[in-house]
Order: sequence, then C-alpha cells, then structure tokens
Amino acid sequence: MKLENKKIAILATDGFEKSELFEPLNGLKKEGAEVHIISIKEGDIKSWDVDDWGESIAVDKLVKNANVADYDALVLPGGVINPDLLRVTEEALDFIRDFYNQEIPVAAICHAPWLLISAGIIENRTVTSYNSIKQDVINAGAHWEDKEVITDNGLITSRNPKDLPAFVAKIIEEITEGKKAN
Amino acid sequence: MKLENKKIAILATDGFEKSELFEPLNGLKKEGAEVHIISIKEGDIKSWDVDDWGESIAVDKLVKNANVADYDALVLPGGVINPDLLRVTEEALDFIRDFYNQEIPVAAICHAPWLLISAGIIENRTVTSYNSIKQDVINAGAHWEDKEVITDNGLITSRNPKDLPAFVAKIIEEITEGKKAN
Repeated sequence: MKLENKKIAILATDGFEKSELFEPLNGLKKEGAEVHIISIKEGDIKSWDVDDWGESIAVDKLVKNANVADYDALVLPGGVINPDLLRVTEEALDFIRDFYNQEIPVAAICHAPWLLISAGIIENRTVTSYNSIKQDVINAGAHWEDKEVITDNGLITSRNPKDLPAFVAKIIEEITEGKKAN
Repeated sequence: MKLENKKIAILATDGFEKSELFEPLNGLKKEGAEVHIISIKEGDIKSWDVDDWGESIAVDKLVKNANVADYDALVLPGGVINPDLLRVTEEALDFIRDFYNQEIPVAAICHAPWLLISAGIIENRTVTSYNSIKQDVINAGAHWEDKEVITDNGLITSRNPKDLPAFVAKIIEEITEGKKAN
C-alpha cells in the first residue's frame, strides 16, 4: 500500500459531485491513507448524482477545526453547487490557501477550480477544468489545457468524472513523491 | 400599460432560479408585454426553488428558431445550474451576443452574468452579480459594484432574488426609453 501513514483532506459541502468525492475517497483509502471529509457545516453533506441530489456522507471535521499541517494532500471535488457555496466562505478559502502556502499537494476536479480562482492561487498555473468554467479559469490568469489530468508543481487538475482514474492515480503519485517543489 | 406591443425574450434552461424567471415574466406581462420563454431544449424547463428543483414552465421557442430582431429586450435569469448549461451552448451565446450587437437591452441577474462573460460582452462594463461570481466578473474585465440594480448602456444587472422589484422596474424603464445608446 502506497499511502500508509498518510492523511488526506477532502473539502466539500452540499452539492458535491458524488463520483468526484467517493472515487478519490475509496481509491486513497485502498492505498492505506486516512481520509477526512472536511466541511463548512456539521452532520451530513449531500451529493449531486449527475442530475439530482444523491447519497450523503458524514462530515469528519469542520474546516475551522482542521489543521492543514496534519495532511499530506487536499482533494477538492466538483459539482456545480458545492464550489459555488464554498467560494464565498472565507475559512474554506483560507484552508485551501494554507495548503498552497505550505506546499502540500492540492487536487481539484471539474468545477472545483473556481475555488482556486477565489483563493487566488491559480494565476500563471497550467491547469484544466470542466469545460463550462474554462473562460473563468483563463480570465484568472491560468494556462488552460484540454487533458485528463495536469500537474503543475503540486497542483493537480482534471476535467470531469471520466478523468477520475487518472486524477486519483496522479494524487497518489504526488503524495508518494513528497512535498511539491513550489 | 407601459409595454404594449413590446416583445421580450427570457432565455433559460433547467435549473433557472424560479423567482428570477417568474417575477420578470409576470411583471412584464402585467405591463402588456408579450413574453417568450426561449431555451436550448423543447418541452418544459425545470426551475430551481432556493434549494431544490421547483415548478416547470413550457418553452415557447428554441433559441435556434428565435429571431433577435423580434424582441425589445432579453432577460437572463440566474440559478447556478442554468447558466452553467447555457454557457457551453454556442447558439445560446450567439443569441445573447446578437442582442448586444443590435443594441437591444439585456438584463442579467444573480449567476447569469456568467453568460455575459462567455458571450464576451462584459469587458469594461459596470455591472453587479451574485456575490459568489464577483471574482469571475472582475477577472473578465468588468467593473463590479454592490448595488441592487446597475444599468450601463442597455446592460441591466442585479445581485439576487431580493433585487427583483428594482430589476424588473429597470427593465421596464429601459424598454420604454427605447434602444440603448451603445
């Protein structure tokens, strides 16, 4: 198992795309990682399953009680509603920014790069995203490419649920390689 | 009645914020306007009512069959899902752009300014929007202000459902004043 003794944070709230949380969660746990669901609300958060609400998952920790230094990576699932709610929450943006500042890998898929825009950490980075937000990503100063997964100095991005196998594999690779050379 | 013999297009698809379509629809019809629901799909489109799917409305015309010159204004409701679907549809963006090019008033509320970004018609304009997309709007080159309604040469924008009375009143005013001085 490649991720023994590794701890990974998944930051999400209601409206996260179901596959984009559960597939990384299961893939990373399978490699031995301890994975925490971090949110801005207590209790359960409700997924979005393609075109309607889907199954929920229990929150392990509120973002205000989570310590970035405890983790070896941050995963940001997409969904349209989830990042739209998180990006107006200053403590969520601070949390994301702290991973960046402490040079710990950050992985964002689908609509989650909106969070990288709001956290102010996407400028001059080479990334991908869901097609609908491509213009927002480019306008924020990023270099956008149409690839299943892109890594730029510890920042991992993918386009949509079809890219999940490549996305999860790249997260595992980045964590086992250690801290990013920012 | 202030809008007799006036025709107004509302462009939306599934996930439009319910109040942001129905309140302009009813307010504009009350002044005598003929209002058409234009979409990228036939049949009904389903609203989003604050935190879940809400009532549907019948589509009058597909965007590909609609003629911009027939209308005296275009209204773009928000919702998170609706503009995210429309902004990847080239014929929807062409439709919006044609209103702009023909100097016919365009009104966008909440998350609908994403459509103005994707249509490429927001640069150097003074606008407002829903708070979560403020950064996207600014990054697209617009001047963002925190007001219930802003008009800039025929481009009318508001922040959220609470602004609807001011938003609808301003649409009526812009139409009765005639074409914008672009």
